[in-house]
Amino acid sequence: MAGNSFGQLFRITTWGESHGPAVGVIVDGCPARLELSERTIQQMLDRRRPGSGPTSTTRGEGDRARILSGVFDDRTTGTPIAILVENRDAKPAAYAPYADLFRPGHGDITYQAKYGIRDWRGGGRSSARETVGRVAGGAVAGVLLKHFDVRVIAYTRDLGGVRIQGVDLESVDRNPFGSPDPGSVPLMAERVASAKKQGDSIGGVVEIVANGVPAGLGEPVFDKLDADLAKGLMSIGAVKGVEIGSGFKAASIPGSEHNDPITEKGYASNHAGGILAGISNGDQIVIRAAVKPIPSIRRVQRTIDAKGQARELSVTGRHDVAAIPRINVVCEAMVNLVLADHLLRQRAGAGSVSNRGDQPTAGGK
Amino acid sequence: MAGNSFGQLFRITTWGESHGPAVGVIVDGCPARLELSERTIQQMLDRRRPGSGPTSTTRGEGDRARILSGVFDDRTTGTPIAILVENRDAKPAAYAPYADLFRPGHGDITYQAKYGIRDWRGGGRSSARETVGRVAGGAVAGVLLKHFDVRVIAYTRDLGGVRIQGVDLESVDRNPFGSPDPGSVPLMAERVASAKKQGDSIGGVVEIVANGVPAGLGEPVFDKLDADLAKGLMSIGAVKGVEIGSGFKAASIPGSEHNDPITEKGYASNHAGGILAGISNGDQIVIRAAVKPIPSIRRVQRTIDAKGQARELSVTGRHDVAAIPRINVVCEAMVNLVLADHLLRQRAGAGSVSNRGDQPTAGGK
Amino acid sequence: MAGNSFGQLFRITTWGESHGPAVGVIVDGCPARLELSERTIQQMLDRRRPGSGPTSTTRGEGDRARILSGVFDDRTTGTPIAILVENRDAKPAAYAPYADLFRPGHGDITYQAKYGIRDWRGGGRSSARETVGRVAGGAVAGVLLKHFDVRVIAYTRDLGGVRIQGVDLESVDRNPFGSPDPGSVPLMAERVASAKKQGDSIGGVVEIVANGVPAGLGEPVFDKLDADLAKGLMSIGAVKGVEIGSGFKAASIPGSEHNDPITEKGYASNHAGGILAGISNGDQIVIRAAVKPIPSIRRVQRTIDAKGQARELSVTGRHDVAAIPRINVVCEAMVNLVLADHLLRQRAGAGSVSNRGDQPTAGGK
Amino acid sequence: MAGNSFGQLFRITTWGESHGPAVGVIVDGCPARLELSERTIQQMLDRRRPGSGPTSTTRGEGDRARILSGVFDDRTTGTPIAILVENRDAKPAAYAPYADLFRPGHGDITYQAKYGIRDWRGGGRSSARETVGRVAGGAVAGVLLKHFDVRVIAYTRDLGGVRIQGVDLESVDRNPFGSPDPGSVPLMAERVASAKKQGDSIGGVVEIVANGVPAGLGEPVFDKLDADLAKGLMSIGAVKGVEIGSGFKAASIPGSEHNDPITEKGYASNHAGGILAGISNGDQIVIRAAVKPIPSIRRVQRTIDAKGQARELSVTGRHDVAAIPRINVVCEAMVNLVLADHLLRQRAGAGSVSNRGDQPTAGGK
Repeated sequence: MAGNSFGQLFRITTWGESHGPAVGVIVDGCPARLELSERTIQQMLDRRRPGSGPTSTTRGEGDRARILSGVFDDRTTGTPIAILVENRDAKPAAYAPYADLFRPGHGDITYQAKYGIRDWRGGGRSSARETVGRVAGGAVAGVLLKHFDVRVIAYTRDLGGVRIQGVDLESVDRNPFGSPDPGSVPLMAERVASAKKQGDSIGGVVEIVANGVPAGLGEPVFDKLDADLAKGLMSIGAVKGVEIGSGFKAASIPGSEHNDPITEKGYASNHAGGILAGISNGDQIVIRAAVKPIPSIRRVQRTIDAKGQARELSVTGRHDVAAIPRINVVCEAMVNLVLADHLLRQRAGAGSVSNRGDQPTAGGK
Repeated sequence: MAGNSFGQLFRITTWGESHGPAVGVIVDGCPARLELSERTIQQMLDRRRPGSGPTSTTRGEGDRARILSGVFDDRTTGTPIAILVENRDAKPAAYAPYADLFRPGHGDITYQAKYGIRDWRGGGRSSARETVGRVAGGAVAGVLLKHFDVRVIAYTRDLGGVRIQGVDLESVDRNPFGSPDPGSVPLMAERVASAKKQGDSIGGVVEIVANGVPAGLGEPVFDKLDADLAKGLMSIGAVKGVEIGSGFKAASIPGSEHNDPITEKGYASNHAGGILAGISNGDQIVIRAAVKPIPSIRRVQRTIDAKGQARELSVTGRHDVAAIPRINVVCEAMVNLVLADHLLRQRAGAGSVSNRGDQPTAGGK
Repeated sequence: MAGNSFGQLFRITTWGESHGPAVGVIVDGCPARLELSERTIQQMLDRRRPGSGPTSTTRGEGDRARILSGVFDDRTTGTPIAILVENRDAKPAAYAPYADLFRPGHGDITYQAKYGIRDWRGGGRSSARETVGRVAGGAVAGVLLKHFDVRVIAYTRDLGGVRIQGVDLESVDRNPFGSPDPGSVPLMAERVASAKKQGDSIGGVVEIVANGVPAGLGEPVFDKLDADLAKGLMSIGAVKGVEIGSGFKAASIPGSEHNDPITEKGYASNHAGGILAGISNGDQIVIRAAVKPIPSIRRVQRTIDAKGQARELSVTGRHDVAAIPRINVVCEAMVNLVLADHLLRQRAGAGSVSNRGDQPTAGGK
Repeated sequence: MAGNSFGQLFRITTWGESHGPAVGVIVDGCPARLELSERTIQQMLDRRRPGSGPTSTTRGEGDRARILSGVFDDRTTGTPIAILVENRDAKPAAYAPYADLFRPGHGDITYQAKYGIRDWRGGGRSSARETVGRVAGGAVAGVLLKHFDVRVIAYTRDLGGVRIQGVDLESVDRNPFGSPDPGSVPLMAERVASAKKQGDSIGGVVEIVANGVPAGLGEPVFDKLDADLAKGLMSIGAVKGVEIGSGFKAASIPGSEHNDPITEKGYASNHAGGILAGISNGDQIVIRAAVKPIPSIRRVQRTIDAKGQARELSVTGRHDVAAIPRINVVCEAMVNLVLADHLLRQRAGAGSVSNRGDQPTAGGK
């Protein structure tokens, strides 16, 4: 019950179904007097827009964000910020064939099991369209982070098995795959084209880095920074795995190599991914999210209907070949939200009883 | 602030430092009239006891759990269950050499940065000893799960690069590594011996499976079952990554293979890991946690002291070579806690307005 | 931070300023498959509409509630229910004279102190218009309560010093003051007319009763049913006091009289107000809220401006003489919300491990 | 479920039954580096000790508070502070006669209805002994408040119908009734003696004032400062009503009198009780709690037993005649906790984006 809010002090609550009248988000706890306009939110929303790349569908969402409260004279007032985006291109009828069918890999069957009813129009609440609210909320969080000189960026690390060989952040926006490695782009294009041709879909890995995060964020022992980041990313529909720093490679690295040496100039390596014992250490935060292939595919699949009878299914209509790169901005939004929340949580208690002065951090970061 | 509670309806709050007088947990929200004794908790605690295997130290913790409230005539009463374990073998003086040193890979430096003070005796709150409270709480959650025929088990999937080749759950308790593959045991023994000889440490991967979980658990869109599992596991100190079902492999599997076909007899595969759209689907839940190597090693490391001066450090004293397999029961405890909480959350709303009757789930699970 | 949500399992989040584009509410955690239409919400909203009685202004709000999510085929789906009401008759310019003045008795000065900025148009978020979201959310809670045969009703117990002499629930809707005592109506009318003539305002006391509440609701020791009711009612802008059952009279009643005798047929009296030790006892729940006079009055008052200079102020424009009876439905909504939340919380744990069967309650209630 | 925690950022979780081995509290979210010793906690606990005045029993609780975590070298470390108090004088056998009887005015019957089981030894969790954890937690909150120059004090305003005629805070500790009016003391003594003689009990009203609270605390619209104060006080077992400032008198005061004029030197009156629109205004905060008479009385009462049969009951043993003045320090503790929590919440967001500078507050307070 009541699982549609995220964050403690900087908290969003999202609502809306894929083919209902609108989707939206309430941002509660945003500090007052930050500059905020619909344009800032729109810019981030535009980055998750479909139809903008080879992996995407052509649904003309044309999302337009409206701010309905919490902003006065282009400044936040400290009251809840309501953002609404109408579902302009909703075509619920297109989903009528699936009204009594459970699409494999989708939440159709589990929503039905949980609630005993489901809005089958485009997946309803389990649709990727739900992420509009996350991104709009993440845009507001981004304004707060920018004020503290924190910058978060997400990029494609792996698309359908094509892995990047290097990271040039300037390149990310210059190709349709969100790749930071120009050399990977032709290979990714080929991979996508091949999947599309086969009526199939592909997954990948998104990497998110955060620069400028001050040391001290994260609340042991359960609300550790990495724990909340893991929750935030894993709560995105298509994500099947999350790792911080060394991640799963930690299993095969000896301690003598994994421990990041602390020097007078900072950490000599970053297996920690910027987080030690659940608290940011001032170094770059590095997280990765594994994204599963889009479940809606043209290729024929086995399933059952509402009566439990075996059926076959080919999902037609407008569907992406990969959640990447549209999902990248969603990952970025979730990281924004976690960092904004922990910034506020740390402000509440830090230095409260006396001047903390210059606490030692590696390399004076 | 206030990050030491976990769960919404079935909630634990833990407390205690490694070398203070005691550690403990409050379990709030446990339903009334469950059978509960200190013995049940003790049995689970004993499984995380050090000194019981080749990867472990010889600290004689001899933990004894005492129930101080919430139980009457061996039954829970619905009031908070306080469990306390004294720190009998505390030797704070052994840590005096590290009072002004930041051990690499440890939370020393981040606790100092966050709080401006730290209890340096054995890592204080950032010590693995903190997990005693989790395990005691997880034991109580286990009693609730057992009542609903849910069974959770954790085992070693990889130890320092030695990966299991198969899973025989009966074997898990019969070797000192928590391995479900008898064939892997000699290799793991060799790996551990080698690391110990070198004054080094190793990491690994723990896999946790849950059987008997009913379809319908998980609260979209943020408190999805996998999101809460990810948070729970990532909140364990040594964990650097979490994945569900296919996990990071999802990146290279096409949708046509990744989608689990739904048949009249159930799902034909389990890439989902038992969770679809954040809701349990009735199939086995499969999760993995990547565990980093123990940071306390004998080998010399570079670090700085409280004044920021470069220093060298060799950590002596009693330290494990690997967190595995002691951490396995901690993972199990966290999964217990998440499932218990979501069972209660689902009970709150499910079928509330009318008899839901036989909702369709794959294979009638 | 983040104080705009109410409830744990049945949770509302409200947003919106008095003279912004709209106000609204998200209802999260409402069980699935309840019948719900815009008409049900509209009916409850209409009861708080201004201009419907002698104590009220003539602002033509004409609120129309739109459901934007969470309902499919006139049934709740278990996903968040977003309800939006446009501010049709917003006249922000009317408030320009108060842009740099702090109206006594209003939140102008405290919002400014807290946030360093405020939306001065009609009080912004501190306006009574904020209660639209509460009432819409309370209407949804009412549907859930009705399913469990719980019925909540609020009425005027005292208006500007005119106290009712008896309670006839049938009368409440038949007079413009929400009074359950027809004999009090002429006196109340006189009291209101007198205040209006003097350019002054009056307060009163609202009594709320809940029938059919099962024994067992309330979560000791902090989330007691009366504690949550007190918070819910005190969170309404104009409320200065809350009491349960005997309330402040308990101070002068001896224990031998105050204790409600338990008989085979039920409680012989109800000083408890239906709640014992924070848990409902099956008897009628009785709560009262003290309502302060409307702070916006025509009579001249002393105040200061944004520069701290002394000023005089006469608030003109459309303002109620009393918050009663419009506030009555807001009180009812808050009680609905608390009871709905606690019904779900109790369902989560109650009888979970075995059939509780016939627990003894007074008089078999 | 899970109702034993209070507060968002400064949060306590209490546990323990009246006649179990111990009671205690976890304080989570207390800022680091505050001076804290067992003596500070002990001093506040001693003020709720029974046997210290004419209204009290002679149970030799002799409570001794032990800090088990979260403090290092007499300073808080930012980790959870566990405080434990043993139940030294527990005499569970004394309650055996009530094992199958429901004492009127007590939680016996509602705990049984809710949980289907109850610890009948001395009321178990519903005993006033539960408040030990609140007071210990409130003592820690008091240390934080003192750092910010906030001072909270509770005193008796009315005891069994004897009302004070004036307030001299210096007098509060100089009489056994917690009265700030020396003239009221003989009358109160007479009232108590009379009730004791009749085997009866009495109630009263506690007033709590807080000085030095900065303007800006409270989180509209649900977590208003007065709303959280109301919840905190109403969650105390014996409290039946709460009012802020004018409270129930607001019902009969016209707006022209109730509005506190704002002058260049501050507010000219304080009907608001220091809180406007849910936010502290810098003036003194004034709250009152109505306390019911102790339900355990020697006089014979009607009740039923566990089988629903009519019975008669005379409660013998050691019982107070009035909860006042022992409950006063509990009220003070709850106010401490609410203010500490809101101080931290306000710190999280206030002035976050730029220097707020000198926001106007009445009289520069």
